Amino acid sequence: MGPRPAPRVSSLPRVSATILFGISLSFLLVRAVAWGQTDPLPSWNDGTAKQSIFTFVQTVTDPTGSLFVPPDQRIATFDNDGTLWSEQPIYFQFAFALDRVRALAPRHPEWKTRQPFKAVLEGDMKALAASGEKGLAQLLLATHTGMTTDEFTKLVVSWIATAQHPRFKRPYTDLVFQPMIELLAYLHASGFKTYIVSGGTVEFMRPWTERVYGIPPEQVVGTSFVTTYKLGSDGKPMLFRQPKIDFIDDGPGKPVNIQKFIGRRPLLAFGNSDGDQQMLQWTAAGEGARFMGIVHHTDDVREWAYDRQSHVGRLDRALDEAKGRGWVVVDMKSDWKKIFSFE
Amino acid sequence: MGPRPAPRVSSLPRVSATILFGISLSFLLVRAVAWGQTDPLPSWNDGTAKQSIFTFVQTVTDPTGSLFVPPDQRIATFDNDGTLWSEQPIYFQFAFALDRVRALAPRHPEWKTRQPFKAVLEGDMKALAASGEKGLAQLLLATHTGMTTDEFTKLVVSWIATAQHPRFKRPYTDLVFQPMIELLAYLHASGFKTYIVSGGTVEFMRPWTERVYGIPPEQVVGTSFVTTYKLGSDGKPMLFRQPKIDFIDDGPGKPVNIQKFIGRRPLLAFGNSDGDQQMLQWTAAGEGARFMGIVHHTDDVREWAYDRQSHVGRLDRALDEAKGRGWVVVDMKSDWKKIFSFE
Repeated sequence: MGPRPAPRVSSLPRVSATILFGISLSFLLVRAVAWGQTDPLPSWNDGTAKQSIFTFVQTVTDPTGSLFVPPDQRIATFDNDGTLWSEQPIYFQFAFALDRVRALAPRHPEWKTRQPFKAVLEGDMKALAASGEKGLAQLLLATHTGMTTDEFTKLVVSWIATAQHPRFKRPYTDLVFQPMIELLAYLHASGFKTYIVSGGTVEFMRPWTERVYGIPPEQVVGTSFVTTYKLGSDGKPMLFRQPKIDFIDDGPGKPVNIQKFIGRRPLLAFGNSDGDQQMLQWTAAGEGARFMGIVHHTDDVREWAYDRQSHVGRLDRALDEAKGRGWVVVDMKSDWKKIFSFE
Repeated sequence: MGPRPAPRVSSLPRVSATILFGISLSFLLVRAVAWGQTDPLPSWNDGTAKQSIFTFVQTVTDPTGSLFVPPDQRIATFDNDGTLWSEQPIYFQFAFALDRVRALAPRHPEWKTRQPFKAVLEGDMKALAASGEKGLAQLLLATHTGMTTDEFTKLVVSWIATAQHPRFKRPYTDLVFQPMIELLAYLHASGFKTYIVSGGTVEFMRPWTERVYGIPPEQVVGTSFVTTYKLGSDGKPMLFRQPKIDFIDDGPGKPVNIQKFIGRRPLLAFGNSDGDQQMLQWTAAGEGARFMGIVHHTDDVREWAYDRQSHVGRLDRALDEAKGRGWVVVDMKSDWKKIFSFE
């Protein structure tokens, strides 16, 4: 990790003062003030990224400071795939979709000869890739819609409890990043309300985010399908998932959905790809102290290393903007002592 | 107020037991257990509605009971217009729209000859009514869109601080129902998270709901306009309100939006019109104890009296369903000691 510009909050008067004492002193000082003797981020190596987090949290939670923010306005938004858990070799939601295609295949004999389903059933990843975004959308609609919301939740709960990641041979929820779990807990303890704002679909995440991240369903924002209300033949109401995208919560859709769902601009936002760039811009444009963070996947031994050339989680334009504007770029290899809790 | 069927929770075993002791005894018992010596609902007359609320809250918050619900699942949803504040002689948001038309008229000379704007500028309410839903939509789009979200918020903040209700000559926010304010506070104190789920547009409510109801912006759900993200010529990002409806949060749209925004089914829902019927059905269809309430406008002296024939806040089919299923119908005239705090 090369030298980085000072984090954005350091341009503010009260923070600048601590910098005069040098990084080490201010670091110890901030840590001691913020958390007493216990380090809330034990899986983070000491360094600029970790220090920037402490400095920011102390700045907005210090009631005597000029940049104090009342607890009810402490909103933090996190991307999910690649930011809170891994996203390789394919988005985990896509792995769910492929498993659903296999499970549903007996009911759809026509899939044996129709792409992209044929490719999934034959394990032909090349043909699957060739089906492109249109093929992906077909798979999503065929596996994520056409049932009630309650039925879909049951499918997710069952899959997330049993499916295993192909490389790590563990449940997908074991592949959450321990340093980010610690960051979420630290923010919760510091009065922040944390939200997920993900390109993944919202009802794929809600059944397990509270258990895994401590983030309740009502604080999960994501891509959604059109849902309609109807009364069943027994008079019982149901919400039915229609095979139509309602809103894509990615790129410029993220600040749009943050406004729609939360109605407040985040103080802190964390992402890992170009799909998070506008969320970070929107956060940065707020008044007072703001924190913009990017998880940079740099560890091909413990996790994966990818950025500008990747098809999954491409980080290119957002990386340039982060470097140009002094946003915090977390180098997974050097900034994280531990990536997964099972290491 | 005629006799009503027992509230829904009374069909449950532990509540039935209290009913054997008679209404008065159970009422005193529940109150004493729930709140010690202080009545959390002083503006409610003693009666079935008030008792039903106490019984329900005690049922779901009693950790030794079989119908206990953990705090994180205690979701309550409230309609706004006619449920938390008045909605006569016209929806208050519509009064805002009319004031905006008058304020914007100098910039739109063509409005002098074009309906429905002409009718607004001439105070011709008959012509305005004749323009129908299409006219209303035109007024909404012309006054609620075409600016950034920040600019719209400023307009609402300014209007709500200065506009006066024509009958009461007071700020519109004085026309909130004191008994409902007490109910919201009682629910908050009992661990509930309260949401507004309104047919009104969400960004008209968010600037003032926290101050007036104690409900923060992120717990306000409503009708929305399409919003787009763009960078200004100065590179500063903005969210621009487009003249297009995104979603109408009314009728069957309410349970759809409850699922989309909250992701949990409410334990308690309160409305006042047919536009709330599906939200109440969706709530009623949940397992365990649920509370469905309707505010019935029956007091033409202190507020207004209207239901089946009203153009604003019509209560017809939902009233029949409420009576048939034992939902709690609050009779404003007899159930509420006080309607507005200024009385």
